[in-house]
Amino acid sequence: MEVIEKIALMQEVSEKWRGDGNIISLVPTMGFLHQGHIELLRVGRQKGDRLIMSIFVNPIQFGPQEDYETYPRDAEGDLNKARSAGVDAVFMPTVKEMYPDGFQSTVRVEEITKYLCGKSRPGHFDGVTTVVAKLFSTTKPHLAIFGQKDYQQLVVIKRMVRDLNMDTGIIGVPTVREADGLAISSRNSYLSPEERSSALSLKKGLGLAKAMVAEGEKDPVKIKNAVRELILSHPFTEIDYITICDPEKLADIEIIDGPCLLALAVRVGKARLIDNAIVREN
Amino acid sequence: MEVIEKIALMQEVSEKWRGDGNIISLVPTMGFLHQGHIELLRVGRQKGDRLIMSIFVNPIQFGPQEDYETYPRDAEGDLNKARSAGVDAVFMPTVKEMYPDGFQSTVRVEEITKYLCGKSRPGHFDGVTTVVAKLFSTTKPHLAIFGQKDYQQLVVIKRMVRDLNMDTGIIGVPTVREADGLAISSRNSYLSPEERSSALSLKKGLGLAKAMVAEGEKDPVKIKNAVRELILSHPFTEIDYITICDPEKLADIEIIDGPCLLALAVRVGKARLIDNAIVREN
Repeated sequence: MEVIEKIALMQEVSEKWRGDGNIISLVPTMGFLHQGHIELLRVGRQKGDRLIMSIFVNPIQFGPQEDYETYPRDAEGDLNKARSAGVDAVFMPTVKEMYPDGFQSTVRVEEITKYLCGKSRPGHFDGVTTVVAKLFSTTKPHLAIFGQKDYQQLVVIKRMVRDLNMDTGIIGVPTVREADGLAISSRNSYLSPEERSSALSLKKGLGLAKAMVAEGEKDPVKIKNAVRELILSHPFTEIDYITICDPEKLADIEIIDGPCLLALAVRVGKARLIDNAIVREN
Repeated sequence: MEVIEKIALMQEVSEKWRGDGNIISLVPTMGFLHQGHIELLRVGRQKGDRLIMSIFVNPIQFGPQEDYETYPRDAEGDLNKARSAGVDAVFMPTVKEMYPDGFQSTVRVEEITKYLCGKSRPGHFDGVTTVVAKLFSTTKPHLAIFGQKDYQQLVVIKRMVRDLNMDTGIIGVPTVREADGLAISSRNSYLSPEERSSALSLKKGLGLAKAMVAEGEKDPVKIKNAVRELILSHPFTEIDYITICDPEKLADIEIIDGPCLLALAVRVGKARLIDNAIVREN
């Protein structure tokens, strides 16, 4: 497995692989790999001839009050896991390599970034699309694999790729969960045992919403109120948002009569957790 | 020569060419080809194994009061000229192909787009960088050729490429001029014979500035005033800006003691003309 820190070298390696007729898969990560990432790597390994994983905790997608400095890191453990998962190259640049002096460009998706996490994390998705565009031009992947847990991120990246004609297929992989249903996230490491228990309320909320829709409830407000009440009945929880929206345009919907997504963000202690589910398919 | 209207087909052709080991040059144009473009094609032809020219009058780089609708077009003439210049493929998409419903992404270079034409044409460079990013991901060029007449555009594109790690070399080609010195531009076609004569004042202004710097003048304000006076002594002229700035950062300079660029934009009748020169090399 190659470990590459320089953009120019990564481009050279990818160009060589492409020239030899290989399909390149990319799994972009911020490191601190967990089962969710391993599943992304499994899909990438299966669909590509060469599998690249990037590890980069991207400063520009964190707000000034957010956890960039304390975001969990484990380079050595990550490299071992990557090796076991059959990764061919890990691209692991420094911040200086990605954002040298004079850096001043942004890739922005304008509309669908206004909703959900875009509302509570201004600038976050500009940071995501900019770094993903950079990772794509560096690793030149035919395919890139993202988790559906970051549902909005997945939709935003698909939009960017389509709008900017990037020749990379985007694959969304279903959320990997703990046995009790908690969506796996690096930020779960912030949770105390009591908070861990309260964190289950996100998944329970999604289940409640699905059940209400299945029973015929058409009013998003009633569903959101019920989910809110359920979550707030757990200690240490503070709701950032609960949204029922169009799964592609991400705008709130007034009445549930077609495909819709419930997405939510909840603070549990100092962890900000997100989860989502399609509560109606069509 | 292939004429290609679809993004997906252009990508396929470029991918094939790259796979066969060819160096691809791209010359992006808005059509209505003149000697300036022919020179870009000559350089592209010389440096690449496969030469792609794009023709696309890009609506998003025109302001609402600008000349998008009336911008001169001559598809048939352009294709003949391209053939003579040894172009291998012309990429000529429709507006709908480039900006389908739901399009909402922007590539932006933040700082150096605030000066010069960025000041008088808000949003212009966002339109330029966005379309060039799209053209690059569509044609996958190793090299792209731009004219130095659009000096700021060249600097902005180089910045975008560096910032977003696009694996495309950017080549700037010196401005091609008429025998009397007028920089060749598609917009020269808007000029009446009398205006054509006044349009020479741009080049004369650059000459005057160079002479003053050569004689030791260090004050940009004095030079700009002299250039302004010279230009306004010609009928039909109206000055948009005259700037003496750092050739890379494009910010105004206070005193001439290093490399500097004089860039100007002047309305002559209904044509808005630009020109520039390095008035001091180092």
